[in-house]
Amino acid sequence: MANAIVSQSGGPTGVINASLVGVIEEACKCKDITNLYGAIHAVAGIKKEHFIDLKKLSIDTLECVAGSPSSALGSSRDKPDEAYCAQVLEVFKKRDIRYFFYIGGNDSANTCYIINNMAEKCGYDLRAFHVPKTIDNDLRVTDHCPGYGTAAKFVACAVMGDDLDNRALPGVKIDVIMGRHAGFLTGAAALAKTREDDGPHLIYIPERPVTMEKFLADVEGVYKKLGRCVIAVSEGIGDVDHVTWAEKLAANAERDAHGNVQLSGTGALADFLAGQIKGKLGIKRVRADTFGYLQRSFAGLQSETDVKEARECGRKAVQYAMKEDNGSVAMKRTGSGAKYGVEYFRTNLSEVAEKTKSVPDEFINKDGNGMTAAFVEYAAPLCGTLPRTEFLGGYPKV
Amino acid sequence: MANAIVSQSGGPTGVINASLVGVIEEACKCKDITNLYGAIHAVAGIKKEHFIDLKKLSIDTLECVAGSPSSALGSSRDKPDEAYCAQVLEVFKKRDIRYFFYIGGNDSANTCYIINNMAEKCGYDLRAFHVPKTIDNDLRVTDHCPGYGTAAKFVACAVMGDDLDNRALPGVKIDVIMGRHAGFLTGAAALAKTREDDGPHLIYIPERPVTMEKFLADVEGVYKKLGRCVIAVSEGIGDVDHVTWAEKLAANAERDAHGNVQLSGTGALADFLAGQIKGKLGIKRVRADTFGYLQRSFAGLQSETDVKEARECGRKAVQYAMKEDNGSVAMKRTGSGAKYGVEYFRTNLSEVAEKTKSVPDEFINKDGNGMTAAFVEYAAPLCGTLPRTEFLGGYPKV
Repeated sequence: MANAIVSQSGGPTGVINASLVGVIEEACKCKDITNLYGAIHAVAGIKKEHFIDLKKLSIDTLECVAGSPSSALGSSRDKPDEAYCAQVLEVFKKRDIRYFFYIGGNDSANTCYIINNMAEKCGYDLRAFHVPKTIDNDLRVTDHCPGYGTAAKFVACAVMGDDLDNRALPGVKIDVIMGRHAGFLTGAAALAKTREDDGPHLIYIPERPVTMEKFLADVEGVYKKLGRCVIAVSEGIGDVDHVTWAEKLAANAERDAHGNVQLSGTGALADFLAGQIKGKLGIKRVRADTFGYLQRSFAGLQSETDVKEARECGRKAVQYAMKEDNGSVAMKRTGSGAKYGVEYFRTNLSEVAEKTKSVPDEFINKDGNGMTAAFVEYAAPLCGTLPRTEFLGGYPKV
Repeated sequence: MANAIVSQSGGPTGVINASLVGVIEEACKCKDITNLYGAIHAVAGIKKEHFIDLKKLSIDTLECVAGSPSSALGSSRDKPDEAYCAQVLEVFKKRDIRYFFYIGGNDSANTCYIINNMAEKCGYDLRAFHVPKTIDNDLRVTDHCPGYGTAAKFVACAVMGDDLDNRALPGVKIDVIMGRHAGFLTGAAALAKTREDDGPHLIYIPERPVTMEKFLADVEGVYKKLGRCVIAVSEGIGDVDHVTWAEKLAANAERDAHGNVQLSGTGALADFLAGQIKGKLGIKRVRADTFGYLQRSFAGLQSETDVKEARECGRKAVQYAMKEDNGSVAMKRTGSGAKYGVEYFRTNLSEVAEKTKSVPDEFINKDGNGMTAAFVEYAAPLCGTLPRTEFLGGYPKV
């Protein structure tokens, strides 16, 4: 009999709360767990012992939490070093916390890993488990990450509507999508395409640096053919010198505690690209949007696949903790298309900590400006159901 | 027995296609209407006789159209003068078109009005009817406009999620929302607020110009009290000298054919406001998003009230055209809260043409930085159901 703690770290997602509820409902079933603490604002909340009693929440509250975007326990961008983690471990000892569930990305897996190693070294029996989440979909081992499908659904619905808008009032439309290093989320724009001439017509991801000349030539090619062009661009897109365009633009770039340059939330890249197209191609109607934080936090939009899997990942972490010392929850795909399904398994924290993955080559087209059918097959089931749409402009003239 | 034509003009919305389907289904019932033409790209398509046969569409296609954002017949930003309208009228005569249904905003009502007057002068029997649409909600006579409720729902869901995100990682968040002259859509951010300390904490609309000093003092006040601040700002917000901040920023402002400055689609205003808060208040975590075109085109998100009313407005236009010479469809509210409902009526084109309305004083708080309960009562039923959300950070410590 001992206490357990759960917390959420890093950038919120649309289903990180479903994972939290998965942890809570499974922990409530475990006779080995006395109290289940929720630490407010991640490791920062653990240090300060800012805990709430998660066993007291009603089923109605839990379902409401599971459907809410963002991190219901709050989050933190603190990147704990050894001294920080030692403080966390002291709190665990003081409160007799023997189960630690940490929902987050690869930095969170690393925090879990450090604390687990410290506990082992000093002979404190701790079960440390990482529950994956990230809209970037860039964690290793797992087939895909909870949080990605919902963000991908937002992107697909946004680009789908955007393409219809661009049909109604033709021109060039640029959509800047989150993703500093991995292009999975920007790639999800490809799911908006159901008709031959649907946008997005061009997709640029960080895995394929592109020169301004090539970018402009691509846009001009589509525009000459269709009289319009919808472009999905990752915020992390770079030139062939491997410096991102956003970095080139950001004279006063702000860096977060992890050393990542802050690109989201400003329209600089979108405005710059629109200016290039107007100025160098002489196209008059050029519009640009930066999707920003809506991609990870829009309320009331969840992928049904994603929310189900996120909750199950939370449950599995607790189940694994009853049998094993530490680990991270991962998913393996068991079928594709209509037979889509996943199996859950435990992987080592060291396999997930700090590392990331990129979009594999077979998901990117030869020209480096679009996604392949293999990518669509990979991403479509994660997104869940997308709306059907219709445009009448192509119907026969009378 | 004569032909009818329907077309869509101006900026697309999430339910302008529901109005189109309303026109189609009602026209299909009328024995007085032989052919129902859909003109592609509004008046531009009429001039070119780019018509499709709308009576041939299947019920499945019609339902898919009704659920799709954007203008399924395409749109146009052409602002027709007398000569242009004369050409349109010539096509009507040539094709024996006696019923003209034009779905759009106040500019479209004006086009309808001009063509109707021309037809009267030359003794051509034409029934010209305007069907209202605009996300800005700024048409006269009608209680509210089809298109507004759906855009308002998008804004409310976005700000609701954004506020939860800002609770998880506290700081200042600025959301720039569409609306050059009328603050109805920005005001809809107020619908995101369900708890006492929920954002948006500050709302700025064009009806209430504000100095940078007052804006910064407001933000500082909220930030000192709550440790965070979510702000909704209209793209048309101006200083007390009545020059909008966006205009001050836009050295190379692009104007559309109606003389409106193009503000949407760039992050300039959002970035400027974020910079002011960082620089002058010394707050470190300041983020800003410009919602852009997603507000009018996001696929798969419609307010159930809005889509129903938009469709009915289309039907009513056809019904009125069987009895009257011309007009615009308007709505009158018959009850509030749970008793919300509307009655439809015909109003004169001249009452709607070119004119606009602003947010009335009783909807804006005394400080000019928020909306009143009266506004929330007005806007909530138009939005339809909003998601329930939960944040656990405020639960008692253990």
